Amino acid sequence: MIKVGIIGATGYAGQELVRILLGHKEAEIVWLGSKSYTGQKYSQVYGNMFEIVDEECLDDNMDELAKKADVIFTATPQGLAASLVNDEILKNTKLIDLSADFRLKDVKVYEDWYKLEHKSPQYLDEAVYGLCEINREKVKDARIIANPGCYTTCSILSLYPLVKEHMIDPNTIIVDAKSGTSGAGRSAKLANLYCEVNESIKAYGVTTHRHTPEIEEQLGYANGEPIMINFTPHLVPMNRGILVTAYATLKDNYSYEDIKKVYDKYYKDEKFVRVLEKGICPETRWVEGSNYVDVNFVIDERTKRVVVMGALDNVVKGAAGQAVQNMNIAFGLPEDEGLKLAPMFP
Amino acid sequence: MIKVGIIGATGYAGQELVRILLGHKEAEIVWLGSKSYTGQKYSQVYGNMFEIVDEECLDDNMDELAKKADVIFTATPQGLAASLVNDEILKNTKLIDLSADFRLKDVKVYEDWYKLEHKSPQYLDEAVYGLCEINREKVKDARIIANPGCYTTCSILSLYPLVKEHMIDPNTIIVDAKSGTSGAGRSAKLANLYCEVNESIKAYGVTTHRHTPEIEEQLGYANGEPIMINFTPHLVPMNRGILVTAYATLKDNYSYEDIKKVYDKYYKDEKFVRVLEKGICPETRWVEGSNYVDVNFVIDERTKRVVVMGALDNVVKGAAGQAVQNMNIAFGLPEDEGLKLAPMFP
Amino acid sequence: MIKVGIIGATGYAGQELVRILLGHKEAEIVWLGSKSYTGQKYSQVYGNMFEIVDEECLDDNMDELAKKADVIFTATPQGLAASLVNDEILKNTKLIDLSADFRLKDVKVYEDWYKLEHKSPQYLDEAVYGLCEINREKVKDARIIANPGCYTTCSILSLYPLVKEHMIDPNTIIVDAKSGTSGAGRSAKLANLYCEVNESIKAYGVTTHRHTPEIEEQLGYANGEPIMINFTPHLVPMNRGILVTAYATLKDNYSYEDIKKVYDKYYKDEKFVRVLEKGICPETRWVEGSNYVDVNFVIDERTKRVVVMGALDNVVKGAAGQAVQNMNIAFGLPEDEGLKLAPMFP
Amino acid sequence: MIKVGIIGATGYAGQELVRILLGHKEAEIVWLGSKSYTGQKYSQVYGNMFEIVDEECLDDNMDELAKKADVIFTATPQGLAASLVNDEILKNTKLIDLSADFRLKDVKVYEDWYKLEHKSPQYLDEAVYGLCEINREKVKDARIIANPGCYTTCSILSLYPLVKEHMIDPNTIIVDAKSGTSGAGRSAKLANLYCEVNESIKAYGVTTHRHTPEIEEQLGYANGEPIMINFTPHLVPMNRGILVTAYATLKDNYSYEDIKKVYDKYYKDEKFVRVLEKGICPETRWVEGSNYVDVNFVIDERTKRVVVMGALDNVVKGAAGQAVQNMNIAFGLPEDEGLKLAPMFP
Repeated sequence: MIKVGIIGATGYAGQELVRILLGHKEAEIVWLGSKSYTGQKYSQVYGNMFEIVDEECLDDNMDELAKKADVIFTATPQGLAASLVNDEILKNTKLIDLSADFRLKDVKVYEDWYKLEHKSPQYLDEAVYGLCEINREKVKDARIIANPGCYTTCSILSLYPLVKEHMIDPNTIIVDAKSGTSGAGRSAKLANLYCEVNESIKAYGVTTHRHTPEIEEQLGYANGEPIMINFTPHLVPMNRGILVTAYATLKDNYSYEDIKKVYDKYYKDEKFVRVLEKGICPETRWVEGSNYVDVNFVIDERTKRVVVMGALDNVVKGAAGQAVQNMNIAFGLPEDEGLKLAPMFP
Repeated sequence: MIKVGIIGATGYAGQELVRILLGHKEAEIVWLGSKSYTGQKYSQVYGNMFEIVDEECLDDNMDELAKKADVIFTATPQGLAASLVNDEILKNTKLIDLSADFRLKDVKVYEDWYKLEHKSPQYLDEAVYGLCEINREKVKDARIIANPGCYTTCSILSLYPLVKEHMIDPNTIIVDAKSGTSGAGRSAKLANLYCEVNESIKAYGVTTHRHTPEIEEQLGYANGEPIMINFTPHLVPMNRGILVTAYATLKDNYSYEDIKKVYDKYYKDEKFVRVLEKGICPETRWVEGSNYVDVNFVIDERTKRVVVMGALDNVVKGAAGQAVQNMNIAFGLPEDEGLKLAPMFP
Repeated sequence: MIKVGIIGATGYAGQELVRILLGHKEAEIVWLGSKSYTGQKYSQVYGNMFEIVDEECLDDNMDELAKKADVIFTATPQGLAASLVNDEILKNTKLIDLSADFRLKDVKVYEDWYKLEHKSPQYLDEAVYGLCEINREKVKDARIIANPGCYTTCSILSLYPLVKEHMIDPNTIIVDAKSGTSGAGRSAKLANLYCEVNESIKAYGVTTHRHTPEIEEQLGYANGEPIMINFTPHLVPMNRGILVTAYATLKDNYSYEDIKKVYDKYYKDEKFVRVLEKGICPETRWVEGSNYVDVNFVIDERTKRVVVMGALDNVVKGAAGQAVQNMNIAFGLPEDEGLKLAPMFP
Repeated sequence: MIKVGIIGATGYAGQELVRILLGHKEAEIVWLGSKSYTGQKYSQVYGNMFEIVDEECLDDNMDELAKKADVIFTATPQGLAASLVNDEILKNTKLIDLSADFRLKDVKVYEDWYKLEHKSPQYLDEAVYGLCEINREKVKDARIIANPGCYTTCSILSLYPLVKEHMIDPNTIIVDAKSGTSGAGRSAKLANLYCEVNESIKAYGVTTHRHTPEIEEQLGYANGEPIMINFTPHLVPMNRGILVTAYATLKDNYSYEDIKKVYDKYYKDEKFVRVLEKGICPETRWVEGSNYVDVNFVIDERTKRVVVMGALDNVVKGAAGQAVQNMNIAFGLPEDEGLKLAPMFP
């Protein structure tokens, strides 16, 4: 039984970790860390957990936690995981960080986009970017797994085969992404009030969203050299779900079958990536509550562009689900343990 | 392995049966019946099931199905189950009917409220009303289990202890219920279009809703003699969830503890009924996706009434979940097999 | 041209006052008061007002404001209006208070339910309860108009004819009310975040909501002696709208026509109260954005109760619209000036 | 007083025409045409109009209507207006067609994209594309005004200044658009049911949406030669609103001020186009219920692209509002008569 500690257990991603791990046969939660709710019963913070989780929230004493846990999930604001981790902790436990602290290899890029000083750049080299489908082998032995961002998981997996196989001009990539509101977190901000979000859609962080360099770095690896893209996130009046619509210019007159073949090449054996049938567009409702990413594409023969679409549940494959998938890989368990969740509809 | 057939597999309740049974260790689906989609792949009707359910929809040939299945769920319009069932079928299989056909013992009441002729009244006597927490023992040996309605499950479980213990005047009961829109089913009606339901709330079926006699019959049994109530359903702009707010006059000056004690008496050992802590009102978000019913009450000392509240997921405990719970009981399995679903939030 | 000042112009009700007054031919806004946003452009707080309202927010200096304005609307938290008003102000201007400070005649009832000391009880006697359809004559000469609460406007207007004509037993009244989330105001509270409200419904303030004594007081006047009711509000995932479903025992075997007649007696000539046709239930979508209240009723012959329903837009007839209606009456203008707004759908 | 007839008065756009015209001082509705509801009271189809519109729906006898009306709005399915119009009608009345029948000059393009035979191509030449801000002068004398599509109005107005001034490479334009569900119309389709749309987002009509050639044609005129773009619409779980996010490569190193200047050049004096302040992204909530289009842009210095955003209410500026604006122009009235509607929030 793997002993799991969670720092930031009362955010939406933290709570989803709890939900998923409750159904995991090989893991048990030993530490529900929450700075804001220390000492309160977890089920008073999340009423869904009443009579299911009886524990109280603990503080975020990571040193003590490291002695008790085989793995620590940090579902915390940017900067916290980097400020808490140290060699002693990493001797005892693995760290799966759901924040952005260990996702970017270049500390300067991190500090430029996040406007934060990185507190433990010495670990950047060894940290593995935990996009399971791409980096599965590296995850197996990692001490620090940087769990990818929600937008980035969806964007990268949608575009990866085309970039990897050099079928598109990577510098023409434009990613137009739409997210449910749980992505904004559970803090009491006016902009996230029901009446402010409901019945509206907006772009935000235009040209400046922090997931941009993360997508660029990972797709750059696939491409073999750096790329630069446009990424625009939007806030959608729904709880969960991310939809990515991406555009890029094709390098040749590829047919549907040509492109389908490379998607199948990379994803045919992937349980959690579903390449949809021809003509079916991904919809977030079909992945809600599950770890699936649905992808598909349409060729525009008029403009020689391909329109690539991907959908996932930002709280699951975009956060907690992928974190558990990483844990499964890192501990040699079946990759889908605890994640055999059929999407819930409606 | 219990072989399960579903008639009406492409309605919302039918699809939820599929979702739940996918996670059930002792059951496998052998028949996905759908009159409207016969011959189509199930995953083309419900995209969430892509690469999960590969089967095509079959017709609703119940005679043939009865030879293959140990249990048949009918998630069909009123009248259909009663018209299909016969002795031959019941020799081979159990029937768990999610429609109203076998819920009311009095065929005249059925025909009055449903404006339908009952096609097999000869089975009404033996049919067991499958409200698990109340009729568990009878369910064990039943051939026909009448799965309760969504509103009724919530209403009855919320009020049962008070009626059973004669703490309220049952003829003062007023049930004001609110339901998510999945309760209206998956048929293409103008009134259920997104723009017609969104940003609005209304009452409907005022004084005439068919769940009224069902609540009255069952609470009448608890009371020891017939009762008459007011029941008003409302349509709420959300997918899932039912909230019941019920009012009744207390027969005595009961304290919080007095009433809490009787709720605990009936529900303390019930896994799926959660009596909330003092002062906490049930909210549908805390039960979504799960088989839980959350109940609580507030005494109004000014008016000598008690306000009782209950919340459940209409598609789970109000339909498919309770149906599986009934199956588990009827086949001697752990009652929560396949139903250990923590509510999903947000 | 009536000069209007608004204190609390950046709350939802304050902003709706602005929207309505922009279309009012006889009124102009001279003061947009907002403690939180003093010095900021109003259109930066409410982007809908960009290029429509160019003014900056001012503070809540009511003494100065009273010199400039013919009427002051206070759309402020409970207690503020009572703490600011004085004789000097009332010499110069009329006060239309959208808070509860002057609604209840009995200062003790106010202090009990609001847990606040009343700072100017000396004005309670002269303050007029501004439920226009009932108190029109008194509003004409009032210096202080207590604009009714949203729930109360809907509850009282729905039930008034039956109470006034003694057709129901007033002590059997149960009001089950449902409100959109704008009723919770524009403050950054976790409970009002999009993901917390969306896809859920709950009761709150059960037996303790402050609109209870307000309904009781006003219906008590109609009844001729005090009454006591149950009132339960619910939070619904929509922006605007209140639906009231009320229950009461009929005193006699009244027919539909008997009851229809008394509704027509009181409301036939009321522009803003629409008694719907037989069998049509009020729905909040049909009044959104307008000053209408839609009411109707169903007799339950089985239980001898009447089910009364009312729907209004909580921000308009439940707040800003009624406040403008009161202003129109108090200044001798056509009652519907600025309020000829057809409900907006969808 | 202008006499107005509406064909298709019971669709969402038709009903919005009614709402807007009720507040129009110089127009009165003389014909509420609705094939589906002929003979029924309009207020039974749209409950918001109860006691406001007393008329019954009439059929779509356009010949008779033309004798009574000065202007006819056709808010009808594609193909109907073209099949009904004739010289006799046009002698008596102006036609403002909200369908696509007269938007595209090239009948072949129409027939290719709409898969319909055009029944009156002889009128295509004289028909004026009623994008008021661009074609105001031509609208003044037109007999047939082709009211632009919702997506197209938003897309064209957002991009027009940049294309007209040749600041972007028009063949790099990618328009990613998001629409509320009222855009899907009021017909009872399974795909538009509340539970199917709610809590989900999807792209549709990818590379094939019929508004594509309309945008291309109009922007082609601005450009001076034909262009080809990508256009992808998405369905968003909200009632009203369209947001366009468009991408294009800048032809030079333009500064914010350079681009702002051309937006101001074209829109400074336009009442209904609001160029937002620097850094403010358009949001559909700020235009709801009004005839405004909010536009803004962000330069991405990294990729040399500009991200252009536009927001409007698809039922108003995207349909009925612009139709009334066209009527005002065509009849020499103040362009904003009946359209001085401040956006309603929340």
